[in-house]
Amino acid sequence: MPRQISQRSLDEFYADLGRNDLVPLWPISNELMPVTPRPDTVAHLWRWKTLRALAERAGELVSIDRGGDRRVLALANPGLAGAPYASSTLWGAVQYLGPRESAPGHRHTPGAIRFVLEGDGVWTTVDGDACDMHPGDLVLTPSWCWHDHSNPTDQPMIWFDGLDLPTMSALDAIFFEAYEPDELQPVQGHNISERIWGGRAILPRDRDSQLTSSSPLLVYRWHDADTAVDGLLREEGSSLATLQYTNPLTGGPALPTLACEMHRLLPGARSRPYRKTGSSVYVVYRGAGCSIIDGQRFEWSHGDTFVVPSWSTLEHDATEPSDLFAISDRPILEALHVFRDEWLDTPQEVTGTFMPKESRHELRP
Amino acid sequence: MPRQISQRSLDEFYADLGRNDLVPLWPISNELMPVTPRPDTVAHLWRWKTLRALAERAGELVSIDRGGDRRVLALANPGLAGAPYASSTLWGAVQYLGPRESAPGHRHTPGAIRFVLEGDGVWTTVDGDACDMHPGDLVLTPSWCWHDHSNPTDQPMIWFDGLDLPTMSALDAIFFEAYEPDELQPVQGHNISERIWGGRAILPRDRDSQLTSSSPLLVYRWHDADTAVDGLLREEGSSLATLQYTNPLTGGPALPTLACEMHRLLPGARSRPYRKTGSSVYVVYRGAGCSIIDGQRFEWSHGDTFVVPSWSTLEHDATEPSDLFAISDRPILEALHVFRDEWLDTPQEVTGTFMPKESRHELRP
Amino acid sequence: MPRQISQRSLDEFYADLGRNDLVPLWPISNELMPVTPRPDTVAHLWRWKTLRALAERAGELVSIDRGGDRRVLALANPGLAGAPYASSTLWGAVQYLGPRESAPGHRHTPGAIRFVLEGDGVWTTVDGDACDMHPGDLVLTPSWCWHDHSNPTDQPMIWFDGLDLPTMSALDAIFFEAYEPDELQPVQGHNISERIWGGRAILPRDRDSQLTSSSPLLVYRWHDADTAVDGLLREEGSSLATLQYTNPLTGGPALPTLACEMHRLLPGARSRPYRKTGSSVYVVYRGAGCSIIDGQRFEWSHGDTFVVPSWSTLEHDATEPSDLFAISDRPILEALHVFRDEWLDTPQEVTGTFMPKESRHELRP
Amino acid sequence: MPRQISQRSLDEFYADLGRNDLVPLWPISNELMPVTPRPDTVAHLWRWKTLRALAERAGELVSIDRGGDRRVLALANPGLAGAPYASSTLWGAVQYLGPRESAPGHRHTPGAIRFVLEGDGVWTTVDGDACDMHPGDLVLTPSWCWHDHSNPTDQPMIWFDGLDLPTMSALDAIFFEAYEPDELQPVQGHNISERIWGGRAILPRDRDSQLTSSSPLLVYRWHDADTAVDGLLREEGSSLATLQYTNPLTGGPALPTLACEMHRLLPGARSRPYRKTGSSVYVVYRGAGCSIIDGQRFEWSHGDTFVVPSWSTLEHDATEPSDLFAISDRPILEALHVFRDEWLDTPQEVTGTFMPKESRHELRP
Repeated sequence: MPRQISQRSLDEFYADLGRNDLVPLWPISNELMPVTPRPDTVAHLWRWKTLRALAERAGELVSIDRGGDRRVLALANPGLAGAPYASSTLWGAVQYLGPRESAPGHRHTPGAIRFVLEGDGVWTTVDGDACDMHPGDLVLTPSWCWHDHSNPTDQPMIWFDGLDLPTMSALDAIFFEAYEPDELQPVQGHNISERIWGGRAILPRDRDSQLTSSSPLLVYRWHDADTAVDGLLREEGSSLATLQYTNPLTGGPALPTLACEMHRLLPGARSRPYRKTGSSVYVVYRGAGCSIIDGQRFEWSHGDTFVVPSWSTLEHDATEPSDLFAISDRPILEALHVFRDEWLDTPQEVTGTFMPKESRHELRP
Repeated sequence: MPRQISQRSLDEFYADLGRNDLVPLWPISNELMPVTPRPDTVAHLWRWKTLRALAERAGELVSIDRGGDRRVLALANPGLAGAPYASSTLWGAVQYLGPRESAPGHRHTPGAIRFVLEGDGVWTTVDGDACDMHPGDLVLTPSWCWHDHSNPTDQPMIWFDGLDLPTMSALDAIFFEAYEPDELQPVQGHNISERIWGGRAILPRDRDSQLTSSSPLLVYRWHDADTAVDGLLREEGSSLATLQYTNPLTGGPALPTLACEMHRLLPGARSRPYRKTGSSVYVVYRGAGCSIIDGQRFEWSHGDTFVVPSWSTLEHDATEPSDLFAISDRPILEALHVFRDEWLDTPQEVTGTFMPKESRHELRP
Repeated sequence: MPRQISQRSLDEFYADLGRNDLVPLWPISNELMPVTPRPDTVAHLWRWKTLRALAERAGELVSIDRGGDRRVLALANPGLAGAPYASSTLWGAVQYLGPRESAPGHRHTPGAIRFVLEGDGVWTTVDGDACDMHPGDLVLTPSWCWHDHSNPTDQPMIWFDGLDLPTMSALDAIFFEAYEPDELQPVQGHNISERIWGGRAILPRDRDSQLTSSSPLLVYRWHDADTAVDGLLREEGSSLATLQYTNPLTGGPALPTLACEMHRLLPGARSRPYRKTGSSVYVVYRGAGCSIIDGQRFEWSHGDTFVVPSWSTLEHDATEPSDLFAISDRPILEALHVFRDEWLDTPQEVTGTFMPKESRHELRP
Repeated sequence: MPRQISQRSLDEFYADLGRNDLVPLWPISNELMPVTPRPDTVAHLWRWKTLRALAERAGELVSIDRGGDRRVLALANPGLAGAPYASSTLWGAVQYLGPRESAPGHRHTPGAIRFVLEGDGVWTTVDGDACDMHPGDLVLTPSWCWHDHSNPTDQPMIWFDGLDLPTMSALDAIFFEAYEPDELQPVQGHNISERIWGGRAILPRDRDSQLTSSSPLLVYRWHDADTAVDGLLREEGSSLATLQYTNPLTGGPALPTLACEMHRLLPGARSRPYRKTGSSVYVVYRGAGCSIIDGQRFEWSHGDTFVVPSWSTLEHDATEPSDLFAISDRPILEALHVFRDEWLDTPQEVTGTFMPKESRHELRP
């Protein structure tokens, strides 16, 4: 057992450790290993009014081309010191494509999804398959698939972009390649994957998918999600239901790194308090209500987007029939066998209400 | 090395072996281990006209109840010495349910499927879920699920029954239980599984299936099969396509022991010669044409049913737009890692045409 | 509901069914679907004294070469009408290889195992890898691997052969090929697989196995089985323990169709009554005791071999330290999701003792 | 397409984005998505001489108890801004346990391994199983298993600690619990897992493991690793070989988040240039040589520890028979389907030699 140690000896010792690129564990062990997750990510909400107005201004002020590639406004969680990440593991953003514009082709290891919020008629070409995008549709651009976006209409279109980018970055696993020399891939057809892999549990027998780990079905229609969630709600006689968009070849999540979900709540529905490891980004597709996250109340309606940090307690409370699209990192935590969740018995006490900072520029005519 | 051995010594030796329940391998090794499969099952076809007429006569002559349970005519392959099996591994049959009749509940380890050939309005209740049956629909009654059939209409109904029964029997793995004391299960609802698990790759997230290895989706509609096979045909610009009915939770076959397939052929389509280990039973749902099996020609039209033995070469040749429903034991062979198949380059020479024996009773007015 | 039906109408109807290769289900449904498995296989035991003597006589009387390939005496279960099968799903046999003999090369889809009972110094060459065989060793010859046996010694050797042959036959999945033009494969080395894949959970990282579904480790040493079962017994403070020989790449059974097990019982150990679907063949490697199968008592000692049918209740009772090697079809039943088993609470009442028929020829000098 | 845009409009726009917690993608897309991984982690080496001396000083100056829990010096990669992480995904450290000391019990979701560098006689108790530690042994403390360390000897012991901590932290998935009220768990036995799960591909049949995703075998002996790598080297006739410590129940990595490897190089062996996604930490167990990482030369001998960043090109060059133990995040990248690697044809040009900063305090007597 150590005897009387002078402070000077200790100071010298810690200095020597630092000089040798070593850090002692004992002073920091509680911080390194908290009893429960202590994420930097904070619960936060972005108003659609703001997102939409700023996306439109981006459309006026900024062109897209080879250099910038995408006209995208990334949700930057206030807890993450300016990083362009919605949470420590999820990228969330709005993308704006003006009339007659296109966003040039590229591919990258991070997997991405698009969920259409406004507009109609754009297609996203994924490895030659032009996936037509309508409101409420989900389009996948899986890891390392070529993809570009084309707007042949006279109207702009806005969608939500979700990516596993922060995790891929934390894993030092990002590869990127620009499609060249043309900006856009040749289109081999429209909605090819839908015709091949879009059967209702009835699939081609002799056809290999080029996609092995991601879903070969690249687009999921709003109509199908609507029908499925409606059937589940009616069957369960419940006022809320959650669906997962799946890979029809495995029954697992659409992307191996990103869960895509649709949550429907009937008016008056209040979900049971719940928490899980890993974060989620919710996009309000339809309806109005509020969510309580660790006691703080977040009111939402169409287009609003909010983040739920890891292990935060969450309840939803709908005042209108509501559909919340959500992405999460749950497949990653499950693949690594560290996913945990729990339902709590007691509704949270509401201790505050979230007030978004509104830019005064939005208020200008 | 053995010297001069007298025949008498050998005879005595073989007799001693027999007396001790032993069999010498060397005289029978070629028979035990043929160079390629040498099935007892023979290619065979049953005419719908015959099946239908005899099923109808069964309806007149035989009642169904607790004792017999089912009014079923089993296809008995002529190669199998009177066994009631369509092939060495597959059970195939027609089941006839008269107006206002019902077939009492039971369950068994063999898994079963029903494919509707004629009539409308019957439901099969599977673990409380009444699955409505229309022409061209596929209904599953997975291993050890309670099931009964009810016909509330004024018309009879006929469907094809497919089971893995011969294999389960060969494995000494059959368990059976009658539903008691009532003949029919209480119906909890109609088409429940369809509302819960029938989404197009969009599935409940928080719902466990009671069925772990079989599909929780119990009914596949003709409309969905029709749409899926049409989409695939158009996408591939081909004149024939094959779909598999899958378990949406795994992407694998609907039952772990039985593949269910839909083969569509456009007029003039001729499939490439193909052979595989394991047998298949084909049920002609629509159209007309012929199949060549090991050089023998089998003409078919609606309702005809034919068997393809293991490793027999098979070609289809459609004269009308045709839909062939098929079951096979392929999932078993794949699970045991002994499935083999191959496409052959040369069309078969046709060496004969199959002539079914027609009962003279069918010809009576 | 059928009215008064004349017997003549029924007779004519059944005759018509027969003429049309159809069988009515209702008269045979109980037989087809028994409440619990009703195997043809019967519990049976073959004495080592008999097996050994007859194997030796085979060595004197019968040469092995290209024609017969193997000097093998197959256990023919008395319930199986003369078929050379130990049970409806398992092949069991003794193989005798005389001094300086070799058994020529071939391969087949049925998977096989060898368990050495007597002798030392033979090797089985599997795809070029000469696996040396000592008493108590298990050697695999997985599906479609070339294999031959060579005895370079002056002593004969006898081992137990186990195959999944009856199941492969029932599935019409047997392919066979003779190794040509030579009788024996060139030997690339001895015990190669042991050096590569024989680590204790420490395996090559960058080496693919040519065997995907079977174990790449082809030989399991008696010493290792002995150590493992001893460790387990001591750890559990129990008087009996069961080990499974596994595929180190998956943790599953050594062959995808055949479980290989070692059961050790200390003197006085009596196993709890147990039954399972599927059959087993036990080979007594060491010790003495008896097993009770469905109330019948089977006494055994070294080299005796006995069969346990599907769903038969089984208890072991050792009078000496005993090691029972066993094969079973359990992996097949598990792969098809129809495996069931149960432990029973009450020891069986013994209602009889098995008396093997002994050939009087054995008694001749 | 945007017309003439004033810089002021743009400035105002970017300010508005910032005020609303949004970040434009276009100015940063190249940085976010580099063409190949651009890790902050740098290649680095820590000398054993330094590690050992500082660990010993920690032993003199710092006691361990409930507060600090462990006397551990964490490798702090110079590229990671002072974070106590060997790489962006891996924790690496040396742990020092003095004579008669013990490190109190706790558990956490990050998985950990211990590789013994010096000393003998300590045990790590994992869920009641006291795993004895000798030089070259690997001990697992899987996710959420209770563990403590006890040194009953009169000598200190030093081992390498590897954890997936940075990744678990990035995923906000860390849970921690101290063992209470005692500091140490009751010991149920020594090396229990070794007796139960330590068979050479021969495992208990009826025993469930409480560990489902991690290996139930908690300790891997140096002797076994030595034998296995020697067998592989001899079999392949090569001068270098790599083994992976596996989970015997699955054949996968010992922990689901951490690969453990042993690399043996014979004198003169030079490995082919190789790069992969994800980082590795190498611990030199035996021998001497150097590694070239992205052109920089790192000389090493016993106890030295070095880090290879993601996608860095790596070659090893041994001057003595050498054994390098290594951990990597490869199982995570594989589970998420983003693992890539490649062998390069041309040896790297060496452009520099790594010179560790040596503390002047080490030089003091």
